[in-house]
Amino acid sequence: MAQQTKVSMVKEKIKEWIIDGKVLPGDKIYSENELVKMFEVSRHTVRQAVGDLVHEGWLYREQGAGTFCSNRSNQAQPQSVNSTGKNIGVITTYISDYIFPSIIKGIESYLTSHGYSLTFACTDNDPEKEKQCLETMINSNIDGLIVEPTRSSSYNPNLHYYLEMEQNNTPFLMINQYYPQLNPPYIILDDEKGGFIATDHLIKLGHKKIIGLFKSDDLQGLNRMEGFIRAFRENNIPFFPEMFITFTTKERDFLSKLKEVLKDATNRPTAIVCYNDEIAVQVLNVLREYDIKVPNDLSIIGYDNSYLSIATETKLTSVNHPKMDMGIEAAKWIVAEVEKRDNKDNTSRQKVYEPELKVRNSTSSLDKIEDSKVII
Amino acid sequence: MAQQTKVSMVKEKIKEWIIDGKVLPGDKIYSENELVKMFEVSRHTVRQAVGDLVHEGWLYREQGAGTFCSNRSNQAQPQSVNSTGKNIGVITTYISDYIFPSIIKGIESYLTSHGYSLTFACTDNDPEKEKQCLETMINSNIDGLIVEPTRSSSYNPNLHYYLEMEQNNTPFLMINQYYPQLNPPYIILDDEKGGFIATDHLIKLGHKKIIGLFKSDDLQGLNRMEGFIRAFRENNIPFFPEMFITFTTKERDFLSKLKEVLKDATNRPTAIVCYNDEIAVQVLNVLREYDIKVPNDLSIIGYDNSYLSIATETKLTSVNHPKMDMGIEAAKWIVAEVEKRDNKDNTSRQKVYEPELKVRNSTSSLDKIEDSKVII
Repeated sequence: MAQQTKVSMVKEKIKEWIIDGKVLPGDKIYSENELVKMFEVSRHTVRQAVGDLVHEGWLYREQGAGTFCSNRSNQAQPQSVNSTGKNIGVITTYISDYIFPSIIKGIESYLTSHGYSLTFACTDNDPEKEKQCLETMINSNIDGLIVEPTRSSSYNPNLHYYLEMEQNNTPFLMINQYYPQLNPPYIILDDEKGGFIATDHLIKLGHKKIIGLFKSDDLQGLNRMEGFIRAFRENNIPFFPEMFITFTTKERDFLSKLKEVLKDATNRPTAIVCYNDEIAVQVLNVLREYDIKVPNDLSIIGYDNSYLSIATETKLTSVNHPKMDMGIEAAKWIVAEVEKRDNKDNTSRQKVYEPELKVRNSTSSLDKIEDSKVII
Repeated sequence: MAQQTKVSMVKEKIKEWIIDGKVLPGDKIYSENELVKMFEVSRHTVRQAVGDLVHEGWLYREQGAGTFCSNRSNQAQPQSVNSTGKNIGVITTYISDYIFPSIIKGIESYLTSHGYSLTFACTDNDPEKEKQCLETMINSNIDGLIVEPTRSSSYNPNLHYYLEMEQNNTPFLMINQYYPQLNPPYIILDDEKGGFIATDHLIKLGHKKIIGLFKSDDLQGLNRMEGFIRAFRENNIPFFPEMFITFTTKERDFLSKLKEVLKDATNRPTAIVCYNDEIAVQVLNVLREYDIKVPNDLSIIGYDNSYLSIATETKLTSVNHPKMDMGIEAAKWIVAEVEKRDNKDNTSRQKVYEPELKVRNSTSSLDKIEDSKVII
């Protein structure tokens, strides 16, 4: 791992502790020695990571005492903010994993700097837990809710809670996806197009045997799959059996299915489009087992352009997710609704981000693959 | 039941036997006596029903021998049709029930009169059975497929069979709903609008406490629910808890949930929007148990404008489904594709029927309900 990547990894992990509440404002963080052991990195790396976090305001140093977690609401707005006494609920599928800390940081930074307090809850993509979250939020009289749908590719049994909120004039906004029956305001990424541009990029590089690896219990996954299929069709690339592998929140055995496909060395795919960077990293590990080199033997694309896409040795080509910007936009929308600053009719009820591809070195043209084979 | 309704009921049942293949061309049908006992109707009713079916070409009489099932392909086109030797597959969720015989009759009449043979299969709305149906169809080298999606509100695990067909240039068309990931050609009814006009009709009659009873494992049901919610919103009618009851193919316990709601006589809904006429008929039976009169005490709306909507004592207000016309349109489309008569680019890939409400006497204005209560 490159030095800079190691520093990023340590920084992300410490930020996660803070965002997740495992380390609270005023808490002392681990010593340099402890962090060195924990992350199996050099003292130099730890020093640089902690230095960066102090510089960015996540941590502060007290001479002779150690390094402590900052109070982030102060940090976001150093001058004291007039509290509105208002509370916004945030329900997401996950909180401390993957891109969620970034989305939440966006929401949090805007809302705390505008004097709002926040209540967080996560559903683990389980509708039963979503129900509990909604009951908690409604009972605690939140003034607005930002919510990421749970298991959005199936009927959601909790729609009446949202109607109850609408009835009580409690504004809510959906992010990443939305429940169509409610026709709610939302801020999403165009996932169909994201799946399309990822696949189209590979096809333009000469790939034809491309596998798609998608999550099927979220509409995000099904929409990316739709774009994946469209890219084949629009480029007149033949479909083939087993061209996609799916998994769900509960059934995540896609790696064994993928291994089945990789076993037959004569008939391997030359590229894989992954549901997200997390999945791509798991795929990279499997490819290493089979001694398949990326991108020389096989190209791979992630999704979300998360810290994971640059955390591995092979930097992932990935579709960008707006993350923190989406969080800030969601927070702005909910504040405008709560304060009815804008005329309601003028508040845009839908925002769709255009996806963009960040090309790195996990993808290369098929010619190169074949050239390298010839050389060997 | 009115005489004409009884005749219709007997006719529909006999047609079902024929369409379902329970009675084959050349088979002798039951005697008048047997039919009288079977349907618990008068000899006069049976005679009229059988007479009609002979007149319509479904049955034929041989003097002294009895009444037999006609060969329908001959009947549809009395002059001999040049067989194309081509076979079209038809996969629907159900075949012999409800509106399916009508849809299939539309498909069949057009295709047989154009020299096509047909293979039917039904999935009982079970993706595992759909898989078997698709394998059978693909193995028997069908030239085209008309298919109604199975459990369309969840991810469909059989998408690769459809891609295989597309790859092999076997045209297929989806009816009633479609799998969005495939972006396929389809002929559907605008169910969101159907749900809207049904609910809007009740609201315009003064109803506010309206319950929606929807199937949640088909997009048809979820789209009708979306229209139901929109009608409340656009008319500024307050939402209320328990405003919808849902069921699925496997969990059909909506009647017990409905009974729970009806128990409290002081707080009953004044109207119910039903997923379809089949459900509406079951609701009518429950209302009878509770001695709730339709439409005097409660208005009720069905969907599909099926034979059931006029089979009951109370004629159902119902949203029209094009049924046989949809079948004919589907057959025309598939023939055009198979024969490539039309330039492919000119073949419209999507047809959406506008729903219309057939107003009958299961709905009335809320004023009347309240008037009648005053009078009593």
